Amino acid sequence: MCEANAYMIDGNREELIMEAVDSVEPEEGGFRLVNLFGEQKFVRGTIHSLSLVDHKVYFKKAAGS
Amino acid sequence: MCEANAYMIDGNREELIMEAVDSVEPEEGGFRLVNLFGEQKFVRGTIHSLSLVDHKVYFKKAAGS
Repeated sequence: MCEANAYMIDGNREELIMEAVDSVEPEEGGFRLVNLFGEQKFVRGTIHSLSLVDHKVYFKKAAGS
Repeated sequence: MCEANAYMIDGNREELIMEAVDSVEPEEGGFRLVNLFGEQKFVRGTIHSLSLVDHKVYFKKAAGS
């Protein structure tokens, strides 16, 4: 399976938001994450970068939030 | 391997930008894509959504561009 873990970049730190993320869909002010287990989480911010072979999706907070 | 294909959303169409994408890194005005074969491509726009189990990364053009 090609799921990934989602992280929020906070300065030099990476905070794990959610594991085994499948879909990431835009919503007002951020993104709705859904993982392989059907769990959902809303993330405020934007998608910063991807490293898919490492199974990583990075988010960052929107400017000013 | 957990690479994905990158698509640009253009209205109702999805245009394939690059196959077998590994990393997506922010650059001025867009993102630099690198695939498993070491090929690189610059995409002007933002990351719209992800569907990782389907191996798909969607971009859309930035507003006004």
